[in-house]
Amino acid sequence: MATPEIEAKLAPLRAAVKEYGDLIRDLKAKGAPKIDIDKAVVELKARKRLLEDTEIALAPKEASFDRLKLEDLLKRRFFYDQSFAIYGGVTGLYDFGPMGCSLKANMLQEWRKHFILEEGMLEVDCTSLTPEPVLKASGHVDRFADWMVKDMKNGECFRADHLIKNSIEKLLNDKKTSAAVKQDGQDVLARLEGFDNKDMHEVITRFNFKSPITGNDLTEPIAFNLMFPTQIGPTGDFKAFLRPETAQGIFVNFKRLLEFNQGKLPFAAAQIGLGFRNEISPRQGLIRVREFTMCEIEHFVDPEDKSLAKFAKVADQKLVLFSACNQLDGAPAQEVAIGEAVAKKTVANETLGYYMARCHQFLMKVGIDGRRLRFRQHLSNEMAHYAQDCWDAEILTSYGWIECVGNADRACYDLQQHYKATNVKLVAEKKLPEPVDVNFVEAQANMALLGKSFKKDAKKIQTSLQQLTSEQVSALEEELLAKKLYNLSVDGQNYALTPEHLNIKKYTKKIHVQEITPSVIEPSYGIGRIMYALLEHSFRQREGDEQRTFLAFKPLVAPIKCSVLPISANDTLIPVMDAVKEELSRFEMSYKVDDSSGTIGRRYARTDEIGIPFGITVDFDSLKTTPFTVTIRHAETMSQIRLEVSELGRLISDLVAGRQQWSDAQAKYPKFEASATE
Amino acid sequence: MATPEIEAKLAPLRAAVKEYGDLIRDLKAKGAPKIDIDKAVVELKARKRLLEDTEIALAPKEASFDRLKLEDLLKRRFFYDQSFAIYGGVTGLYDFGPMGCSLKANMLQEWRKHFILEEGMLEVDCTSLTPEPVLKASGHVDRFADWMVKDMKNGECFRADHLIKNSIEKLLNDKKTSAAVKQDGQDVLARLEGFDNKDMHEVITRFNFKSPITGNDLTEPIAFNLMFPTQIGPTGDFKAFLRPETAQGIFVNFKRLLEFNQGKLPFAAAQIGLGFRNEISPRQGLIRVREFTMCEIEHFVDPEDKSLAKFAKVADQKLVLFSACNQLDGAPAQEVAIGEAVAKKTVANETLGYYMARCHQFLMKVGIDGRRLRFRQHLSNEMAHYAQDCWDAEILTSYGWIECVGNADRACYDLQQHYKATNVKLVAEKKLPEPVDVNFVEAQANMALLGKSFKKDAKKIQTSLQQLTSEQVSALEEELLAKKLYNLSVDGQNYALTPEHLNIKKYTKKIHVQEITPSVIEPSYGIGRIMYALLEHSFRQREGDEQRTFLAFKPLVAPIKCSVLPISANDTLIPVMDAVKEELSRFEMSYKVDDSSGTIGRRYARTDEIGIPFGITVDFDSLKTTPFTVTIRHAETMSQIRLEVSELGRLISDLVAGRQQWSDAQAKYPKFEASATE
Repeated sequence: MATPEIEAKLAPLRAAVKEYGDLIRDLKAKGAPKIDIDKAVVELKARKRLLEDTEIALAPKEASFDRLKLEDLLKRRFFYDQSFAIYGGVTGLYDFGPMGCSLKANMLQEWRKHFILEEGMLEVDCTSLTPEPVLKASGHVDRFADWMVKDMKNGECFRADHLIKNSIEKLLNDKKTSAAVKQDGQDVLARLEGFDNKDMHEVITRFNFKSPITGNDLTEPIAFNLMFPTQIGPTGDFKAFLRPETAQGIFVNFKRLLEFNQGKLPFAAAQIGLGFRNEISPRQGLIRVREFTMCEIEHFVDPEDKSLAKFAKVADQKLVLFSACNQLDGAPAQEVAIGEAVAKKTVANETLGYYMARCHQFLMKVGIDGRRLRFRQHLSNEMAHYAQDCWDAEILTSYGWIECVGNADRACYDLQQHYKATNVKLVAEKKLPEPVDVNFVEAQANMALLGKSFKKDAKKIQTSLQQLTSEQVSALEEELLAKKLYNLSVDGQNYALTPEHLNIKKYTKKIHVQEITPSVIEPSYGIGRIMYALLEHSFRQREGDEQRTFLAFKPLVAPIKCSVLPISANDTLIPVMDAVKEELSRFEMSYKVDDSSGTIGRRYARTDEIGIPFGITVDFDSLKTTPFTVTIRHAETMSQIRLEVSELGRLISDLVAGRQQWSDAQAKYPKFEASATE
Repeated sequence: MATPEIEAKLAPLRAAVKEYGDLIRDLKAKGAPKIDIDKAVVELKARKRLLEDTEIALAPKEASFDRLKLEDLLKRRFFYDQSFAIYGGVTGLYDFGPMGCSLKANMLQEWRKHFILEEGMLEVDCTSLTPEPVLKASGHVDRFADWMVKDMKNGECFRADHLIKNSIEKLLNDKKTSAAVKQDGQDVLARLEGFDNKDMHEVITRFNFKSPITGNDLTEPIAFNLMFPTQIGPTGDFKAFLRPETAQGIFVNFKRLLEFNQGKLPFAAAQIGLGFRNEISPRQGLIRVREFTMCEIEHFVDPEDKSLAKFAKVADQKLVLFSACNQLDGAPAQEVAIGEAVAKKTVANETLGYYMARCHQFLMKVGIDGRRLRFRQHLSNEMAHYAQDCWDAEILTSYGWIECVGNADRACYDLQQHYKATNVKLVAEKKLPEPVDVNFVEAQANMALLGKSFKKDAKKIQTSLQQLTSEQVSALEEELLAKKLYNLSVDGQNYALTPEHLNIKKYTKKIHVQEITPSVIEPSYGIGRIMYALLEHSFRQREGDEQRTFLAFKPLVAPIKCSVLPISANDTLIPVMDAVKEELSRFEMSYKVDDSSGTIGRRYARTDEIGIPFGITVDFDSLKTTPFTVTIRHAETMSQIRLEVSELGRLISDLVAGRQQWSDAQAKYPKFEASATE
């Protein structure tokens, strides 16, 4: 938390935010026109951003983090690097090398354990290839887009907001720019996040921005859909996309999953897999990429009861919450017990709160720094129109606060959309406390006449009529009786129905169960982003020797668990080396042998650099006993113990899984004293 | 192996194959025209196929395998099912449900352990999106295609060989078809596998085959590329494909991987990931799909020395080999020690032999039936032109012998292709026994004059000149001197070079290392196919009760490791249930609680059906001791032992990993005697 000196500097900025937060609340209370609220929100965001940038700038820096040094290490030891570099590379695509690959696999395995196994979730594995109608229903075909501008002459494309940002930054760095223009530019920068296409067009025109490459004029901002298009099969007319998220695969399997769960709510399904987004001009390394691994959970729950029995287990857990209210007030994020936040309705319900607490636990387990983690609530205008509440887990990196996990209550939007598109009911049955008589009103299509009037659209009209609720049918009947005409709207088209087109059927039925469309709580994890944040948070420099950098990974996620270092190249040590390797393999503990001729100290420096938590030294004392003994060095504390090779695999696997702590091992095994032979 | 009765029936078919095998050897020895050899090969394949079909038909059937029953189980318990079924489904795309997902994840984890961890391979994780030039260099843009025919009127597409097969089968089932036509049809069926587009066109024309849907005429067979096309970025002119294999990602990272391995050969890199093939009309369930998980290894080795020290460890291992020689002789596959097969040069080298042995071990570990596994060598005309030897691991299923793993020696084709395309040297350095003086001859481009003569192609010509070997430059020089003209061919285009266009530079250099392009041994695993074969091999019916089917998985791959069954719904058992669940989670052992009211026997039947190997029963005796005790039932032997809850996790994880056998556990813990309370 900030010092009093820093808070004093932030106070006027906090007040400036609060001024607009209050204004917006006031406008909303008065029912002011949307355009006025929107304008005030743009200003609010600008002030919030200034506050946040200042906060970050004033915060005490992590000792001496140097992004270039980290990037050099990641490239040199092949954690990851640009894809197809020998072909010139592709922006936004990265290949993971042995270290990155293993780190990622370990994070995914822990995710699977922490969520799927411990919570008893139903895992699915669906295809990346997704037919167009599925993504039409989910809204992605129409709305999953960014604004771009094109060079009028050569057609080169730029993401509109990036172009504005870069062009203004160039202006700001130009000595010839007048103070007034600089002020204007800074003002635009602060507001840019809230701009729509018209705002951006206005800025580009006013500043007379051109293509930074050719100097040519630019088009108005146009929407570019971020999905990768393809076709399935040879005809070319089966349009498909690469999925932009894994969630839709779960929704379209809802019926099978509900059945697998014997028809009972609540249950959670999860998926680990690839997502694809055709970013216009990706930058910022692993943070904005075109192909990425994500982990998504869809927790299906009765919309009228989002309580969760196991919430009690996490209720006392404290999280740093940056609520919408705090954001409007210009107040800092606050540490709050999640039970209290749910009780006060800051967080909408227990299920959502539970996943936020579990999210926090997961991020701590893999090694994210808790002081650089917060949960930020979406402001009402940031959320998708169907979402009821949304909290992003944001992690502070050298790029600022990065959204790494979304925790959203999506209500029943997706299941309803797929029902509308397919006419397959995606509902669960809820037992009523006692049976009730319900009056049904149904509109039954007269297909012969509908076919005559509307030809091939008749089927669509029938489906739409079937999907009407009893209330809607009653309204339709009333209008039909009054005007002898009813305009039915299907997919934006109007069909003039007359009384002959349908029969209204009314009946009463005793109902034991009620059909409900479940609500969905969706935690969605971007693994690449978490991994990048983890790399920043784990990066250290040795005190007194800043050239010696290393990665302090938790054993759980460390790409390689052990180094195995023979003290000498003498052949007599080979049987010990073989025994160690076999023992480690038996427990699936990865290891790296370094039998080069460097000193043990230099060799340990090399293994520290890639974050190997345990070092096993094989020396001539190893041979003195049957069975052989070896030394384990704990990289974090630099302390060592000695034990038999046959105990090695179990101990290290327990240490990695967290079933034992290093201090337990130290208590159990003799502390190692360097022998005379070394 | 076949009985004498069966062998007697097969003998004439074997002789018929051998007749053509001998003919082909003879033709090759005489240097006969390629067309004559090709014709003989088509006949050979037809005879081989008849032999194999008869062998399978005569072999004793697996008790009573019923594919429909298996498919029903897989669908009902959601192992996998068709993707997007509520949208009508997409052929060739499957979604894995909780059971299939876990089975697949366990197979992949074992693959990672068996290969990457135990062999110290370098794992990479590259993108599915692949730019066109990469796949142009690898040959996929030009050659990765199937033949299809189109309906002349509506454009509907059919895979040509499938259309011929189906049309002939229809003819054969038609009583009105004459005996002569039937004979002709059967003849075509037998030869179909070897047909090219002209052969297929001839058959379609001769039999007058039409579209099976509309009866319309069909086009000539045209090549359809099986890669899914897309574009990267917004301009639409950055063409890309979804990768058809993961291998290319490894090749383009060769330099980084070699560096990671400190410049030393041999080393192996591996990748687990998705592959995509836009099949024209996929059938046969998981065996032919459009999106699939594959595991590939590229073992880079000195082309002049493919021996492998650790080969000694597997030399005595016996494999069922179906060599090219046996295939030409009409002889059956033979069980041979891999050491003997390499010594006799049946298998080309130790490295390839080693991977075949390890492949066999992996398939056994996950539960493939060894009696239904063979390694079939490609005939020389089946192999890609660059491959030196190739052995497919084929598994016998109800669809016949299915290729599940390819083990190929690809020589240095891929690295050379990427070098040609990028001019980035993909070589390793090999230390010479002693330094040698080498004469170099280089052709240095005169860029000014080349630019004048060939404009923008000058750069391409320069690159091509740089890539010439010393021998090639000497030949060029000779021709230039003689004719004052040299026609250089680059990418199929000719450039007339005159002496002014280049300088020939000659020099001598002392060389300590030699640059070599490594050869590549590539084992490539289709996980979906292996999984399908495994499901068939694991499917059982209870003796005496054929309605009760179950899956006999090995604990290692079983989707769920334990069932947890409380003997009663009494609340007093809850603390024991909680203790059991926590203990299992601590060791990452998946479990399924069945607290329904059925009898224990009926509940076990349900868990047997999905292949759960261990059942934990919580009863009232559990409460009698502190700590609690429970019973474990071993599904395979139906035997039970009793132990404390705190010992449960470790025991089951040891049983799953194969560190302990059930018989060890039986010796250690008391045999369970049903208590009076049950």
